Amino acid sequence: MKYKIAIIGFGTVGQGFAEILAEKGDWLKERYGLDFDVVAISDPVKGAVYKEKGLELKKTLSLITQGFSLDKYSGGIKGWDSERTITDTNSNVIVEVSPTNIETGEPGITHIKSALSNKKHIITTNKGPVALAYRELAKLAYENEVFFRFEGTVISGTPALNLGLEALAGIRIREIKGILNGTTNYILTEMEKGKTYEEVLQEAQRLGYAEAKPDADVEGWDALAKVLILANVVMGGNLKPQDVERKGITGISVQDIQEAKSDNKRYKLIGRVWRENGQIKASAKPERLGVEDFLAQVNGVLNVLTFVTDELKEVTIVGPGAGRRETGFSLLTDLLNIHRLLEKSSSTIDPSRIVTC
Amino acid sequence: MKYKIAIIGFGTVGQGFAEILAEKGDWLKERYGLDFDVVAISDPVKGAVYKEKGLELKKTLSLITQGFSLDKYSGGIKGWDSERTITDTNSNVIVEVSPTNIETGEPGITHIKSALSNKKHIITTNKGPVALAYRELAKLAYENEVFFRFEGTVISGTPALNLGLEALAGIRIREIKGILNGTTNYILTEMEKGKTYEEVLQEAQRLGYAEAKPDADVEGWDALAKVLILANVVMGGNLKPQDVERKGITGISVQDIQEAKSDNKRYKLIGRVWRENGQIKASAKPERLGVEDFLAQVNGVLNVLTFVTDELKEVTIVGPGAGRRETGFSLLTDLLNIHRLLEKSSSTIDPSRIVTC
Repeated sequence: MKYKIAIIGFGTVGQGFAEILAEKGDWLKERYGLDFDVVAISDPVKGAVYKEKGLELKKTLSLITQGFSLDKYSGGIKGWDSERTITDTNSNVIVEVSPTNIETGEPGITHIKSALSNKKHIITTNKGPVALAYRELAKLAYENEVFFRFEGTVISGTPALNLGLEALAGIRIREIKGILNGTTNYILTEMEKGKTYEEVLQEAQRLGYAEAKPDADVEGWDALAKVLILANVVMGGNLKPQDVERKGITGISVQDIQEAKSDNKRYKLIGRVWRENGQIKASAKPERLGVEDFLAQVNGVLNVLTFVTDELKEVTIVGPGAGRRETGFSLLTDLLNIHRLLEKSSSTIDPSRIVTC
Repeated sequence: MKYKIAIIGFGTVGQGFAEILAEKGDWLKERYGLDFDVVAISDPVKGAVYKEKGLELKKTLSLITQGFSLDKYSGGIKGWDSERTITDTNSNVIVEVSPTNIETGEPGITHIKSALSNKKHIITTNKGPVALAYRELAKLAYENEVFFRFEGTVISGTPALNLGLEALAGIRIREIKGILNGTTNYILTEMEKGKTYEEVLQEAQRLGYAEAKPDADVEGWDALAKVLILANVVMGGNLKPQDVERKGITGISVQDIQEAKSDNKRYKLIGRVWRENGQIKASAKPERLGVEDFLAQVNGVLNVLTFVTDELKEVTIVGPGAGRRETGFSLLTDLLNIHRLLEKSSSTIDPSRIVTC
């Protein structure tokens, strides 16, 4: 099967994904037998172009880099909005990377419903729809016999969801806990050196780790969304945002951090999901951990997730939690995982491909 | 498809696997739609029994616990050796858990070839065959259109191979490094407290972390086998044991460890695979790491593996590296991964199963 991809949203993540496809196309075909074209890109600001036989990705990226709209692409149909791009193109895989809205999930939810109803696979890094509407969307995917994958919604391309759902298949997960937001982890790490919250926030904004309006990160909304995804997708819960105890890091002073330090403790914004009396519970809030705790040893923008299980006790994964390429890469992982299932390859790896990796 | 399993070898790992199946059977059916019977068990010491319609696992385990042979099982055919059990039973999945031999790979290699030639899936935790004959066995699996999986050969059930091969699909791995042997990590961790090698070895033997004849662990043979598997399976190499630099920990004195400590360093037995001038290189030997190094912070019997990659920089997984249930569990993971591919399920998860997890 040839994957005909339409990319909805062409911001940082969409561009990162397009870069990876442009660079790795030949290798992906040789190594995994992955055959694809990006046939359409639609972004309300950066323009839209559709070409049935496939776009030249390098050309689309170069237009954006030079500050032009995709409408300047030579050839193809221009100006189709997201809805028309999802429904009327010859695409069979929709990559939904429109901006995240954790309150409404829109426009992501609408895009995803439209794709699934049209029997097109969905790959997304958009946290809103998965955090707010997972069950409904998973049901729609199942009914339409297409895949709905979203590895990049938790810890970017670091395969947290693949680990919990597939690599660890057969395990019973008692609890999931971790550092799910790099911005706040960077701020807390730097504050331990004696800097104030305001100083470090400015530094983080200069380095691109924090947004100009940093509330989604520092008030714990981003961690909350990821906790909801872990609770509802991996642990089988059905939680809504108001079911999760959420607290940001803005109330933590340098003095609090120094006091913790002298107690051999360290503040971390911890996302946590656990079972209690047959129910799934979750929180996203600062916790004082012992410095010898594994989670306390993950500093800076790194993220970490620990699965507390029946058969393996604790299994922990550490990796980057954000970034243009890191998040863009998660979309490729999802595509390759769909491909492996559709390909029905009978062996772990075709040995003729071993030597080329 | 109903999986009809024959277990070849009924030592610790085989029993751990049988325990898990006995306890989780109903849940596995409900959660994953996994339908299975264990139809045969064959062990040269513990006896052999074959029952076409499936054995009662609890009865087989109870016989072993009471010190009886499987020949005492009421009903079924007794006394078939491994070869006959592989070829002549109605099994379609062979679980190969006979003793590991890192020099010859036998009897594992013969068992695996026999199963694959008879178009039966192979799941194994036996390091010898994978370390010594991976390419040949993978080719045979491919030609016979069956699966050959061996998650438990590296870091027991902690999904190191699934992570490198599947969860991280699409990544280019530049280097793999880690602590692959829990026995030596325990010994080195305890020696840092000032105890001698001999003291700690005895302690480890008492705790069941080290064998009476500890050479496979302390001379680095076990780590070497795992390094070969990572090099040849995950990195596409074609290395033989003599291509890998191997050194054990028996030459490390308490004084060496204290000297390292005063330099802010820590000895770890590190398995390492990397690319150099277009070739795959590997080593398994003690290294002095800075104490701030993530690998240096993993102590005791825990194992850790870091993938150094193009898109995600470093991704690290930490988990148990040995144990009856931990290693037995890896076989279930492999079975469920085969099941997912054969089932061709069209959605990430059948939502009707979500609530039951």
